Amino acid sequence: MEKPKEILEIFKNYTPSVDKEIKLLLTRGRNLPIYDMMSYFLGYLDENFKKVKGYGGKHFRSGLCLLLSDFYGKKENALEVATSIEVFHNFTLIHDDIEDCDPMRRGRPTVWKLWGINHGINTGDAQLVLANIELSKAVKKYPKVGLISQEFLNERYLEVAEGQYLDFVLSEKSISDSFITEKNYMEMITKKSGVLVGTAAKTAGIITNQNKKECNLLWEYGLNLGLAYQLNDDLISIWGRAEKTGKVEAKDIEERKKTLPVIYLYQNLDEKLKNKFAKIYDSEGILSHDEISEVKSLLSENLAHDYVWAKIRKYLEKSEKAIQALSITENQKNTLVLINKALIPDMKWWNA
Amino acid sequence: MEKPKEILEIFKNYTPSVDKEIKLLLTRGRNLPIYDMMSYFLGYLDENFKKVKGYGGKHFRSGLCLLLSDFYGKKENALEVATSIEVFHNFTLIHDDIEDCDPMRRGRPTVWKLWGINHGINTGDAQLVLANIELSKAVKKYPKVGLISQEFLNERYLEVAEGQYLDFVLSEKSISDSFITEKNYMEMITKKSGVLVGTAAKTAGIITNQNKKECNLLWEYGLNLGLAYQLNDDLISIWGRAEKTGKVEAKDIEERKKTLPVIYLYQNLDEKLKNKFAKIYDSEGILSHDEISEVKSLLSENLAHDYVWAKIRKYLEKSEKAIQALSITENQKNTLVLINKALIPDMKWWNA
Repeated sequence: MEKPKEILEIFKNYTPSVDKEIKLLLTRGRNLPIYDMMSYFLGYLDENFKKVKGYGGKHFRSGLCLLLSDFYGKKENALEVATSIEVFHNFTLIHDDIEDCDPMRRGRPTVWKLWGINHGINTGDAQLVLANIELSKAVKKYPKVGLISQEFLNERYLEVAEGQYLDFVLSEKSISDSFITEKNYMEMITKKSGVLVGTAAKTAGIITNQNKKECNLLWEYGLNLGLAYQLNDDLISIWGRAEKTGKVEAKDIEERKKTLPVIYLYQNLDEKLKNKFAKIYDSEGILSHDEISEVKSLLSENLAHDYVWAKIRKYLEKSEKAIQALSITENQKNTLVLINKALIPDMKWWNA
Repeated sequence: MEKPKEILEIFKNYTPSVDKEIKLLLTRGRNLPIYDMMSYFLGYLDENFKKVKGYGGKHFRSGLCLLLSDFYGKKENALEVATSIEVFHNFTLIHDDIEDCDPMRRGRPTVWKLWGINHGINTGDAQLVLANIELSKAVKKYPKVGLISQEFLNERYLEVAEGQYLDFVLSEKSISDSFITEKNYMEMITKKSGVLVGTAAKTAGIITNQNKKECNLLWEYGLNLGLAYQLNDDLISIWGRAEKTGKVEAKDIEERKKTLPVIYLYQNLDEKLKNKFAKIYDSEGILSHDEISEVKSLLSENLAHDYVWAKIRKYLEKSEKAIQALSITENQKNTLVLINKALIPDMKWWNA
């Protein structure tokens, strides 16, 4: 998805400090290409390890963590934890690309595609260690809230790893398998996508020493935003127009992904159609143009997009309810609401 | 290599507590098979996730850390750091098996071989996060020395990841490549193998609050022992008898591994033999029986084993010199010397 301009504008005061901190982490005297591969993935270098100008990742999670810490008047406290979250998130993507055999990410070849699976594994591993080195810095600077943040973050990092595990288990099974349920899918995206946005928000509360109630509201806000974002991404990957999304149209269908619209559809078909659908969806290779059209028709007839969109609205409402209850100014609340709207625009573009 | 009985006897007072702590870490209420795959790899479960009795890993690194902490009268301080080191070490093996395409480890199929590469990657990732969770426990219990241990361990964990990177780079290149030097090979095994033994020893000093000189002696002792052990393993993997080592005879030659005996040999051949050797060693697939015999003859003629054995002796001497300088009792020093001798018996079995 294109980075909405509004978000880049809001985050422009925060993300440069994260980039600076990450670059420090990647250039601490060691002169091995493994760090260049990380710098490539993070957008600082090109594939020949030459500096790239003008590339700026949106750094959503670290930006959000710093923005919220700034709302609480202690932006400087959050630099290390925000950086750790960003480095960790990008480590998961490097390994995720291997597992999904994805050749491209953010418009560029992935690490494993350029340098092979083994370098992809090692680069990710070393980057996860760097995320921990950054957390130790936070503990050293802020012994009490730093350690609480570290404990909280490690538990969440473990959940993300669990989400990655569940994602692969879901992808391995056939659509008719009893494991493929909305409940299991939601657990997977909660852990794989929701948790880290919730974590970015709540960690801002912990590291700036907010009370438990405020921290829990931050978690509610972030977790539900993360879920809404992921489900919206599922819609875009089926119904999004290529020129708007930068993705291949109906990519998730072509690749037989078992995202919520498809799971919902399958659960709601009668026995005969279930079998027919499973036959199309469980075969090998990518789907043909005709098969994609047939699946899209079934999704439309069964109002799968409306079902998922209603869920997105529900999560967004939960997120915005939490925003309104936070102990921050009205202006600050409006900024968070604006971010939500920019990330998940309210338009039923699949009916357009 | 078979676990020497002397070591199992020395460690029997320490490794059960590590196993107990690891099992706690793996069964904290989460009920996902990703933890069962870790338990399988660590030897607590079989491949159907049924409990295995009587399996006991040698847990050399964690055992050593606890033994040394016991020498300093504070065994209880070291449980969390020792456990973290053991969990981290085993994580590296899970990913290493993927990278080397090794189907077997410790006489059982590897994680990737049983459940595929993706589960291997995810299981390792989650296990690395668990190693960090364990470190946070140490910081919580012993804020000062715990944090210093954590910072020290994270830096060493990063070096191990660098070693893994270098190992793959060395394996990718042909024997005639200018990167294949004794210096680069030694850097690789230092980071991949030496560092974690040195780390186990030095961390015992840090967590029990020994002075800097003592900590540095512990590092010297462990690092040099780790190097000697790895180089000895290189010899065994060429000249070891299958019935004694549990390994395929001349396995490293068959697989064209560029370990020190081979690197030394290549550097010492004349131009004509260099070319002949490179032709054999840089081709695809495994070597034939005749080719293996030819390589072994060249190694013998050029006294490659004697060269490597002399290096092993040098590292063992350094290690034992450090032992003698430690502030521990004579009995305790004798125990450490006994471990060194049990790990690396002084016998030139390749000439037998």
